[in-house]
Amino acid sequence: MRKVNVFNNVSLDGFFTDAKGDMSWAHKQDEEWNAFASANASGNGELLFGRVTYDLMAAFWPTLQAAKMLPKVAAGMNAMRKTVFSRTLDTVSWQNTVLMKGDLVTEVMRMKRQPGPDIVILGSGSIVSQLTQARLIDGYQLVLNPIVVGRGRSLFETVVDTFNLTLTRTQSFRNGNVVLWYEMA
Amino acid sequence: MRKVNVFNNVSLDGFFTDAKGDMSWAHKQDEEWNAFASANASGNGELLFGRVTYDLMAAFWPTLQAAKMLPKVAAGMNAMRKTVFSRTLDTVSWQNTVLMKGDLVTEVMRMKRQPGPDIVILGSGSIVSQLTQARLIDGYQLVLNPIVVGRGRSLFETVVDTFNLTLTRTQSFRNGNVVLWYEMA
Repeated sequence: MRKVNVFNNVSLDGFFTDAKGDMSWAHKQDEEWNAFASANASGNGELLFGRVTYDLMAAFWPTLQAAKMLPKVAAGMNAMRKTVFSRTLDTVSWQNTVLMKGDLVTEVMRMKRQPGPDIVILGSGSIVSQLTQARLIDGYQLVLNPIVVGRGRSLFETVVDTFNLTLTRTQSFRNGNVVLWYEMA
Repeated sequence: MRKVNVFNNVSLDGFFTDAKGDMSWAHKQDEEWNAFASANASGNGELLFGRVTYDLMAAFWPTLQAAKMLPKVAAGMNAMRKTVFSRTLDTVSWQNTVLMKGDLVTEVMRMKRQPGPDIVILGSGSIVSQLTQARLIDGYQLVLNPIVVGRGRSLFETVVDTFNLTLTRTQSFRNGNVVLWYEMA
């Protein structure tokens, strides 16, 4: 079975976007952080998005600006296999992307049984929340940013039952980020 | 000037109590964690509470049960100077406790100018939130618990402006807790 892992930035008050849907507060870049992000994006995983995150990513990573700013991450993001779940999109233009219109939980259960690399979800709070509730997420890699954003959206907004995770690793960075690796307990 | 520091447990979804006001999910005890908690409570700080947290603490720490379960922490909690802010309480029964009825921000500004040990706030989400908004908190020591509680109260519920903190230290524990030390940036 392939694993499904979440990789997301979160604020100290538990939000992955602020009240305006902005995630740019998460990008406190320095050499150490960029090296970590590049290594992280150079894996051979497959990416999974909701439509909102897909639109953000597809508007940035294929551009010349992205290639100049973060060449290794951009090359990795463009080359990876990507799946976007959307009821409203008709076509997708970002290379190596598949558009899925079926039921999220059913489709992800099917994807997990297929051969292939592990699946990584970036952003996509609604998808993380639904798959968490369905217990289909195997691991959460959370980048805890040293910021309070006040209002925003949680990765766990539709989760109704308390559940425990197992901490497997942590790493602190000079920019104040702490990366936390959890697995389902 | 005395410093005001917050010490609080938070869930992965950013809550310090669950939807029922329960904080008992935070108490995953083992030998390593208890040693840390004991050392932490044996400092010579002064404690500051809101009424809800005061009621919880005052109903537990003076009891025989607390003395048996966590003797060092209980002795420390009972011995420390404590201040509770409440509009509804008329008297306080827990030893070494002062009841304050004045305006929170005015009184805390006054307390900071007085001589004495640093002030530590436990629980007391409404007070943390108001003092955060007034920029009167110097440090946040957050115990990030490996749990998602779904719904609850945030330490930053009335904070409306985004603000950055400086990470100064982290420590991971075998029970899955990660303690994070932040200072105002």
